[in-house]
Amino acid sequence: MFNDFLPMPDRPVYIQVKDYMKRLMIKGALQPHQKLPSTRELGELLQVSRNTVIAAYAALEEDGFTYTQQGKGSFVAATSVMSAEPSWRIGWQERLSDQALQAEELDLMKHGIRSQKGTISFTSIAPDEKLFDLGNVKRAFLDRMAMEGHVLLNYGYAKGYKPLMDYLLHYMEHKGVDLTGKDILITNGFTEGFDIVLSALGKRSGRVLCENPTHNTAIKNLRLHGFDITGIPMEQDGVNLQELERALAEQRFDCAYLVPSYHNPTGIVMSVQKRLELVRLMGEYRVPIIEDGFNEELRYTASHVSPLIAAAGSGNGVIYIGSFSKVLFPGLRVGWVLADAELVGYLESIKRARTIHTSTLDQSTLYQYIHNGNLEKYLRRARAEYKRKYELTLRCCREHIPYAELTGHGGLHLFVVFAQGFDTRRLLERCQLQGVIFTPGDIFYTDGGGRHTMRIGFSRVADEEIELGIRVIGEQARVLLQEQG
Amino acid sequence: MFNDFLPMPDRPVYIQVKDYMKRLMIKGALQPHQKLPSTRELGELLQVSRNTVIAAYAALEEDGFTYTQQGKGSFVAATSVMSAEPSWRIGWQERLSDQALQAEELDLMKHGIRSQKGTISFTSIAPDEKLFDLGNVKRAFLDRMAMEGHVLLNYGYAKGYKPLMDYLLHYMEHKGVDLTGKDILITNGFTEGFDIVLSALGKRSGRVLCENPTHNTAIKNLRLHGFDITGIPMEQDGVNLQELERALAEQRFDCAYLVPSYHNPTGIVMSVQKRLELVRLMGEYRVPIIEDGFNEELRYTASHVSPLIAAAGSGNGVIYIGSFSKVLFPGLRVGWVLADAELVGYLESIKRARTIHTSTLDQSTLYQYIHNGNLEKYLRRARAEYKRKYELTLRCCREHIPYAELTGHGGLHLFVVFAQGFDTRRLLERCQLQGVIFTPGDIFYTDGGGRHTMRIGFSRVADEEIELGIRVIGEQARVLLQEQG
Repeated sequence: MFNDFLPMPDRPVYIQVKDYMKRLMIKGALQPHQKLPSTRELGELLQVSRNTVIAAYAALEEDGFTYTQQGKGSFVAATSVMSAEPSWRIGWQERLSDQALQAEELDLMKHGIRSQKGTISFTSIAPDEKLFDLGNVKRAFLDRMAMEGHVLLNYGYAKGYKPLMDYLLHYMEHKGVDLTGKDILITNGFTEGFDIVLSALGKRSGRVLCENPTHNTAIKNLRLHGFDITGIPMEQDGVNLQELERALAEQRFDCAYLVPSYHNPTGIVMSVQKRLELVRLMGEYRVPIIEDGFNEELRYTASHVSPLIAAAGSGNGVIYIGSFSKVLFPGLRVGWVLADAELVGYLESIKRARTIHTSTLDQSTLYQYIHNGNLEKYLRRARAEYKRKYELTLRCCREHIPYAELTGHGGLHLFVVFAQGFDTRRLLERCQLQGVIFTPGDIFYTDGGGRHTMRIGFSRVADEEIELGIRVIGEQARVLLQEQG
Repeated sequence: MFNDFLPMPDRPVYIQVKDYMKRLMIKGALQPHQKLPSTRELGELLQVSRNTVIAAYAALEEDGFTYTQQGKGSFVAATSVMSAEPSWRIGWQERLSDQALQAEELDLMKHGIRSQKGTISFTSIAPDEKLFDLGNVKRAFLDRMAMEGHVLLNYGYAKGYKPLMDYLLHYMEHKGVDLTGKDILITNGFTEGFDIVLSALGKRSGRVLCENPTHNTAIKNLRLHGFDITGIPMEQDGVNLQELERALAEQRFDCAYLVPSYHNPTGIVMSVQKRLELVRLMGEYRVPIIEDGFNEELRYTASHVSPLIAAAGSGNGVIYIGSFSKVLFPGLRVGWVLADAELVGYLESIKRARTIHTSTLDQSTLYQYIHNGNLEKYLRRARAEYKRKYELTLRCCREHIPYAELTGHGGLHLFVVFAQGFDTRRLLERCQLQGVIFTPGDIFYTDGGGRHTMRIGFSRVADEEIELGIRVIGEQARVLLQEQG
């Protein structure tokens, strides 16, 4: 005993001695009412100073693991270890809800494509962390902590951190949104916002409209909430309105989930005319819109386009969900829901029941970072960098990939459509052997289609790897096409 | 126009000019294709440097709000503002789910007791922020950012931040838990953990057992998940096992929610013997336990008591949910679920679908703070301070309040039981007029009972206010008792 104590360098040694002794008690190596070695003895045995042992013994007693007898020393307390019996087992499989089983089944992080070390991966559309300006983030954190650190570390409000809420309201107003009768809720990124909104929506028809293809996480969450999904085909300038109107005329829908800017996965930006027409149409059929703001900040060309919620003017039928996680830092889990004030009141209560409130550190750091003027600077750098990668990827695709159609006006990815009958899952198998992976398009389809499509995310791929990777994909695609004859 | 520009001191002026101009375009004061003032003109009008205006105009063009004509200057872009019509309205009331309506109805932050400025409030059991050691938190943040800032700001893992997970596993092992076959999930505090676990539980009987009274937020979430609640009365040493066994023998239950240490609201710590007997009993009836670790760190006296999950030994029937938010910083939204590894796999997928992952800043800052040895130091200070307040409050209650029963072995609150028939809601009305509020006990009861009880939270009340406030409550209680004769 006492010969296997290996302290790590950067943690107080007395705590490590305390934990070491606790362990011996829990393992039963030290029995209740057994006397501990004197502080001097243990110090020698563990090769630490006597004062360290004294501090450790004091801490053990404070934690109730030992007691002292005047002049006799320290002893192991009786209740410090509890009889480990009885033990009994539950068969959890039979105890799970459908939601749990389905969430696991639809969990792409568990069943999706794995990327080994060294593979060139086009599967991610997360930002490139090399762009992160850590100095400004630290600065923002320290500024805010200095101003109101005690407030930041205690409970906040479910609705959000006030300065950030106010900033985002102005921010949305500058996108052309009429704020009258609207309110905002801060959430743990887009995903929580979407989940809460879906929870708040009563199921009347149980049906939801969306673009086909669309954001696969959205498809997952719509399914987990038990909605039937009707996908409307995409065109070059956004969702096909004729198809949309036909669907609206045929059936009733509880809402529509739409991604008008840099649509995931096609990267298409809906035209202004289409946005207005779309909003008019949904209004006519009284179907609310959940608008996914996604990374509409990542515009490289053309002029500003207002979101659908702006096109809806003073109407309250559009629920806008925004997030900076693709644009700024995904590690800061901050998103927001801008919608009808009455509705937001209910969303707030659901949020409170789910997570009390969003991390105040995240909210306040993000707020101060932006307030200090870093968002504009960062966006300028990020846009320039992503635009370069975007154009490089575009060029490589045009040069190497035998596609039928290629879309993507910006953002962090391109969408490749091959001739019908082509199978990107088989293409992926081939490419994986060559150390290149991408996202097969079928996961974005609501109707099992899209086997002949794929998404290429370039945000985190180095230039030379983009060139190399796309060439490999092109070569393998040609081989496959020839085999199909 | 241009005469109402009022820049704030600590935000880059060019951004404020940009926003100001955007606003004029959105309000229609500046029309599409209208020429903007020259940079010199605007600089004079707004009383800012010309370079500031040049930067602002550049930013406006980047955002797509303006365009430049060679030698002619800047013009408002056509699409920068979108026709605010058509506008249409949704009657959200009829569109809401029962969950949304119920969440709002059960939301005590909206329908609970409001505390005006100057009131002495015993309603909170949040920590006293005066205890927060901001310096160590800043230090922890900077240490971690220096080590892996880029990693912290990009996407993390749904399961949690690895170093924190590893630490917590050891931490739980030191509470006597057998980790074999178990795994951990980091959540946004206790509440998200509880919500996810309830979502994962399939409804077989749709019934849940818990102590009566119990944590009101738990009651709310159980109801929101559609469970029928069977409350088992409390005794001085924890839940009444005879009553529990009777209930188990009569009906089937999907699980039991229990708070064995510093039970909320009674502050009772379940005895070791009872813990063992309880676990045996639940095992016999195969009913899983959701154990609320709550603030079991806030022990002021007596020796360490292992949690139920330790008493279950190698069994997998106990789901432990822990959190430091009452002990350390509620603003850091970090809790954890320790349970059967297979079950945690499913919880992880639900977590991913709900919030992707918990704030990495919160997790890494908390980890580094603890790793640096601050938890022990902080707990020593916090325990000493809360113990003092605890004993003061206890003394005042004994001296002033005509209670029938008084419980609370530690933690941040005491529970007062008056004679049957006494109405603490009426007492609250009287006290409120005297500027003193507390939490009426009925909100903690599963069966509408507890009208004659109240919870007194002292963690955030100054000593002199504790003395004054408790005296007021006592006086008013006496008056009420006399009136009742």
